[in-house]
Amino acid sequence: MSKYKPSCEEEKIFLEKYDAKDYPSIAITVDAVVFGVRRDATENYRKLDKQTIQVLLVKREEYPYKNYYALPGGFVGIEESLEDTLERTLKNKTGLTGIYSEQLYTFGAIDRDPRMRIVSSAYISLLDANKTNLKDAIWVPIDALDKYDIAFDHKDIIDEAMNRLRGKIVESDIVFHMMPEEFTISELQEVYEIVLGEKLLAPAFRRVIAKKIEDTGKMTNNAGHRPSRIFRQKKD
Amino acid sequence: MSKYKPSCEEEKIFLEKYDAKDYPSIAITVDAVVFGVRRDATENYRKLDKQTIQVLLVKREEYPYKNYYALPGGFVGIEESLEDTLERTLKNKTGLTGIYSEQLYTFGAIDRDPRMRIVSSAYISLLDANKTNLKDAIWVPIDALDKYDIAFDHKDIIDEAMNRLRGKIVESDIVFHMMPEEFTISELQEVYEIVLGEKLLAPAFRRVIAKKIEDTGKMTNNAGHRPSRIFRQKKD
Repeated sequence: MSKYKPSCEEEKIFLEKYDAKDYPSIAITVDAVVFGVRRDATENYRKLDKQTIQVLLVKREEYPYKNYYALPGGFVGIEESLEDTLERTLKNKTGLTGIYSEQLYTFGAIDRDPRMRIVSSAYISLLDANKTNLKDAIWVPIDALDKYDIAFDHKDIIDEAMNRLRGKIVESDIVFHMMPEEFTISELQEVYEIVLGEKLLAPAFRRVIAKKIEDTGKMTNNAGHRPSRIFRQKKD
Repeated sequence: MSKYKPSCEEEKIFLEKYDAKDYPSIAITVDAVVFGVRRDATENYRKLDKQTIQVLLVKREEYPYKNYYALPGGFVGIEESLEDTLERTLKNKTGLTGIYSEQLYTFGAIDRDPRMRIVSSAYISLLDANKTNLKDAIWVPIDALDKYDIAFDHKDIIDEAMNRLRGKIVESDIVFHMMPEEFTISELQEVYEIVLGEKLLAPAFRRVIAKKIEDTGKMTNNAGHRPSRIFRQKKD
């Protein structure tokens, strides 16, 4: 399976005799923390306009933690890279393909799973949540997670992912993975505020964001609202 | 091995029957990229004063990559967390204990190792390299790595770790893990410059660093040099 060339006959024999089954079995999984900012359709009518940061969860159909909600994830196949596992799992469990993902952290506590020792590499995935075509997964607002039974240590993984997202949204351009192609500055500011959990001053926000966006020349046309300029991400 | 309580008899039986050996074996290792800034004793006399950023490597005594240089690392034991593996490995191979470490990235390409599928969680470790008591490990300047045969994908891991270090030294306080307790501003600036690979303007550097350090009230006393103020990290 490797392009590695043994240096001599002795090494060749060493490698042929090496049997993975002689060693303790630790499984590796990949879990995806898929974040999106979207309207909360589960709330009552008055709140329909309120957007929240939400995470994709899948109801488990098997033991352990049967009927609990878990991050979409799966076992890493013996001939499968971590990224391939992520792609396969997201596609199978959520129908999503090709969404932006980056590795978050690898969780290796010894009692994470009652089946066996399982180490999980968690990834953050970001998307424009208003155009998703989900399979078995559901969107759950981060603020509502405590109303759900969450499997394994996945609540801890989600918390860690939120910390990373808050840190990176300021210092990087990842926010645009959560936005549609075109947006107003108010819409962009709202997503920042929802992720950071705090209100931002519009003039300061505009100053900071100015170098990351460019004017499309178009204006919004919402009946009853003043037209706003429409922007898109500036590409270098 | 887990505190998990099965929900019913059926689940209890499911878990008892679950045999890790039924699944493909993937091993997990931990590899440490230990960085330090130190004088390069391997260079000629004229360069003795030049400090460089260096990484700790261990010469491999076993196949594969026998006699190549590798990051200190080892297999994660079935009852051992990733952090415990890191501690054990650093102690055994370098004699170092309790040094600052953070997870860098988990490398999972399928052909990383000719023995079997091995996924490695790499950590960055930082220390004041002038007070190290090493066992079998040697310090190698980053700039001199291409003079050494490096095992596995460890050169890629070191490159990734250097990128992370450069990014974090500006935005965080990790630099102080590489410094002695007390230092002059020139000494601190030199470490920044060595890590970033570029000269910094002293007034700008002093302005940025001012809020992270505090005056000890002491002065240097080097014969033939003007005395300099001695600082330490400011703790909140």
